[in-house]
This record gives sequence, C-alpha cells and structure tokens, in this order.
Amino acid sequence: MGKLTSVTAFAPATVANVSCGFDIMGFAIDAIGDRVTVAYADANTVKVTGPYGHLIPAAWEKNTASVAVQAYLTFIQKSGLTFSISLEKNMPLGSGMGSSASSSAAAVFAVNHLLGDVLSTKELIPFAMEGERVASGSAHADNVAPSLLGGFVLIRSYHPLDIITVTSPDELFCAVVHPHIELHTSDARRILQSEIPIGDVIKQTANTAGFMVGLLTEDYSLLGRSMSDLLAEPKRTRLIPGFDEAKQAAMQAGALGCGISGSGPSIFALSKGMSCAEEIAQAIKKSFLKVGLDSEAFTSSLNVKGAFVVDSK
Amino acid sequence: MGKLTSVTAFAPATVANVSCGFDIMGFAIDAIGDRVTVAYADANTVKVTGPYGHLIPAAWEKNTASVAVQAYLTFIQKSGLTFSISLEKNMPLGSGMGSSASSSAAAVFAVNHLLGDVLSTKELIPFAMEGERVASGSAHADNVAPSLLGGFVLIRSYHPLDIITVTSPDELFCAVVHPHIELHTSDARRILQSEIPIGDVIKQTANTAGFMVGLLTEDYSLLGRSMSDLLAEPKRTRLIPGFDEAKQAAMQAGALGCGISGSGPSIFALSKGMSCAEEIAQAIKKSFLKVGLDSEAFTSSLNVKGAFVVDSK
Repeated sequence: MGKLTSVTAFAPATVANVSCGFDIMGFAIDAIGDRVTVAYADANTVKVTGPYGHLIPAAWEKNTASVAVQAYLTFIQKSGLTFSISLEKNMPLGSGMGSSASSSAAAVFAVNHLLGDVLSTKELIPFAMEGERVASGSAHADNVAPSLLGGFVLIRSYHPLDIITVTSPDELFCAVVHPHIELHTSDARRILQSEIPIGDVIKQTANTAGFMVGLLTEDYSLLGRSMSDLLAEPKRTRLIPGFDEAKQAAMQAGALGCGISGSGPSIFALSKGMSCAEEIAQAIKKSFLKVGLDSEAFTSSLNVKGAFVVDSK
Repeated sequence: MGKLTSVTAFAPATVANVSCGFDIMGFAIDAIGDRVTVAYADANTVKVTGPYGHLIPAAWEKNTASVAVQAYLTFIQKSGLTFSISLEKNMPLGSGMGSSASSSAAAVFAVNHLLGDVLSTKELIPFAMEGERVASGSAHADNVAPSLLGGFVLIRSYHPLDIITVTSPDELFCAVVHPHIELHTSDARRILQSEIPIGDVIKQTANTAGFMVGLLTEDYSLLGRSMSDLLAEPKRTRLIPGFDEAKQAAMQAGALGCGISGSGPSIFALSKGMSCAEEIAQAIKKSFLKVGLDSEAFTSSLNVKGAFVVDSK
C-alpha cells in the first residue's frame, strides 16, 4: 500500500449545552454531518460544495476547515505542506447543530489521517477549536469535541483542556428540529446574564450532576428530571418564536427532556427509543407550524463513532 | 418474638458540600457518629449523654433528635404516642461533620424501627431535615440524607425532594480533621456571595459533573481534578486559620482533593487507600499545629451502610 494522497472524512452534527450542561456538554448525532476531502496539492486551496456551500467563505484564512487544518499543520511543524480542501457543506449555518464544528472536525480528522495519524483523535480537538474561533469568535469545544469523539462529552476544564467522554444508554435517541429562522451565536450570547443568583447556581449544579448520574446508570427518568437550564434557556427562548409551545408538545409526545440545541434556534429532545423520537420530532414541527415557522426535523441515535474516514486514496 | 419496647440506632458522621458539590452533595464516614435510643414511655422526655451531651438542649421542642421524631410521628399520625429519647452525643458541635444530622438521623431511624418500619429509610429524610431546621435554622438534606442512606448522596432537588445515591469506588477513603475552633453555620453562610459570575458557574457545573463521572467510573484522577469549589471555599477559608497551608499539606501527602467539610471548620480530603488517608490526616494535623491549633483527626472508609439498629428489645 502506497502513501495516501487524499482522504475524505465525515464528522457528525452535535447538540451542545444539553439543557443543564450550558457551555460544558455536547453529544453527537448520526442524522447529518459535513464531509471534507483533504489532498496534497501545489498550493493551498479551499472549495466549498453541498446544499449550504454557497454561504461559506472559500478563503484559506477564513474558512473553518482550512483554519483548523492550518492550526494543526503549524502544531506538528508541517506548515510548509500545501493542500486542496474540499468541504461538502451539508448542514445549515446558524442552526445550533454544530455546523461549523462538523466542518473543522472533519477537516482535521482528514488531514491527520492523510499524514499517517500523527495525533490521536482527542489531540485534534484544539485545532478544530481554532476553526470554531474563526466561525463564531470563540474557540469553544462543546461541539468539536463530540463531533470528533462521538457520544456524550463533558468539557471539564479549558485550562488545561480536560475532555471526558461519558457513556450513554443504548436506548437513548434524539430529535432535533431546526425552525427556519437564523439566530447568531453572538446575539444569543449577548443576552445572557453575567451574574447568576446563588440559588440558581446550586440548582444548575444539582441538575448537571444528576444528568451525569442518569447517563452512567441508564436512569432515563433521572436524565429527564435533570434536563433543566437556569442559565441560558430562560433568556434565549424569547429569540425562538413558539419555543414554549414546542417544548410542551415534545414533553407531551414523551420526551425525557427538551431544550435549545447549542445557542439555537434548533431545539432538541431526548427520548427512550427511536419511535418516540419520531413522534416528538413531528410534534415539535407541528407546533412550529402554528406560529408560521417551517422547520426541518432530524431523528437519530446518538453517534458514538465520532469523525471517521469515508474514503482514502 | 414480642413487640419491641426500645430501639437504639447509630447514624454516621457526614461530609457535606464535598468541594464542587456545594449544598448538593454529601457522604457518610465510618469513623464516628451518634447513637439514639427511643423507648415507649409515659411521657415525652429527652436525655442527653456522651462526651458532648452537656452542650445540647434536652427540651423536647428544642432537641434535634426529638424534633425529628415528633415530625415523623405527626406525619404517620401517631403523635399521641409518647417516648423517652436518649441521645449519646459523640460528635462535637459546630464541627462541620454533620453532628446534628447524625442525631436526628439516628432518632428517626430508631423510632421508625420501633414502630415496625412504617416508612423506608429514604422516606425518613424529610423528618430528619426538621431536626436540622431546629439545629441550624435551615432544613437542609446534604448531611441527613447520607447519614441515613450511607455512601455518596446527591440532592438533585428540594422541591420535590429528589435524593440520588451514587456508587463510589471501593478504594476511596477519607481524612477529616477538626481544628479546635468553633464556626457557626449561620456565620459561614452570611459571608457567601449572593450572585456568582457566569464564568465561575460554568466551571462549578463542569467540576460537579466531572466528580460524578469520576465516582461512577472509578476514575480517581478525574475525581481529584474535579474537587474545586468556586462558591463557598474562596469566601470561607478566611474563617479557618491555616486552611491554605493545611490543604497544601494534604495534597503533598497524596490527597486526591481537599476542601472544607460542610461549612467548616473541619477540613476533609479524599484519597485512594487507607494508608494514604492516614498520612494526609497527620499532615493536616501537623499543619494546623503550626498556627497554634490543636485538632482531632479521623480517617475512614466511606460508610455505605448509613443508619442502622445497634440494639433492640
């Protein structure tokens, strides 16, 4: 087998925050994701295709995928190498489903494999975070980490970076519904409170802890009871028309819990079993229609594989 | 076997807060605890014995044990019954080791067994909490719940009360050192901030989540890394002379983590293995001596049994 010349990798969409896990938790879903092909070339170039490709900058210094690749190359002291990057942008932008993270995760995964798996998947996280920085202004890890690693991920600390993968129950499924409004992460962050009453802090920590115990002991009821957010959701729901009704519809359809996916506007719900996730997705879609919003619904098992190589030559 | 006339129960000391679990976590230790005997009698009486008995009110309406028993009797609609309660007060007051909780937990456990185990141990928690209310002014559960149930306990919610027992690793041991100063819970609460910067909230939730994952996956390193408190410890350490040095001594002696036990002044450390706990305890004791403080040190396995019947007749 000769040396590889081109690698195509896929990295899945992700749900960050997960209600009680504001800024510290995320998980990957199987339903959708981006693909990136990295190939040796005479000069650095980025090409963007796919249904949402026209919305993405194709300049090497501005594209999420190439910025992540460049950060990786600089770290491994191979910044002299040049590549062509082709990003198949399957995910809508500003959806709250970790769109930019999928691109940068797939890109670093592909280039790392092309160069002979120089680093472990976990070690790729900081470079994918640089892709996030160029996309949203902050190098957060709660989308790129689950997109690369799969499963449920806890960002225990940023300094130093401490990423923990947490096993989740087999029967846990997810519905994500993306209403057709755009919401910028920066707007969603601006309306947050800078100080939180200590009583709310105690409740938030209790729910975060309860959620982790629920995941690891496969206690679906505890998982659901813990899915409450006092930090972002009370402020952000006003940015999503019909959120309260959609959440209520999800709960009535059997959701364990329901909240904003990332910084929105997508909303997600967890369920026990796939058929329940499908009912929830339809209930949320129907609820958004009542306020005049069309939406796209995804139902999915949790992705436990993370990023992977689709093709190499 | 005839009807019981008298039951003696033991309930263990507890460490609440556990660094990152401010107001939501606690665990029980085997080293020490209170004993309470409840017997049928012609009138309600309380007698207090033991090394710290003289410091405790012996009036039915003011004693932690009898108040808890009375709350229980009222709930099960047996408030017409009368009892003699004898409390063997083995634990120092205001130590931060759940002294009042041990008394009220042992008392309700004893009376419940005397009456034929009317309620489950978990169902006894609200009545033991009433004992806490009379002792400290607030009906908190983070000491009485682990004292009754044993092990690590998470208070997921107060309204409704949602108490989760969390399995802990077999090799987890604890050192608790009680420096001879008194610190009132009310003073320790008064100096807390009422509002917490959101950045600190995110770190606190991340550590709480990490601690739970560490417990359940037996990841001692993760447990230790997660033992950080941004809510109470930064404010309360100034009430405990020599705290910083004592904590440093504990960490140098191999502690996974170290913090204030409850609202202090006792400090606790977790370790892998009993011999390490013993070294830590001596290191803390020695450190307190340097600031002129005598102290009592306890080293212990985690109590997983909770309250139990010592004697019945």
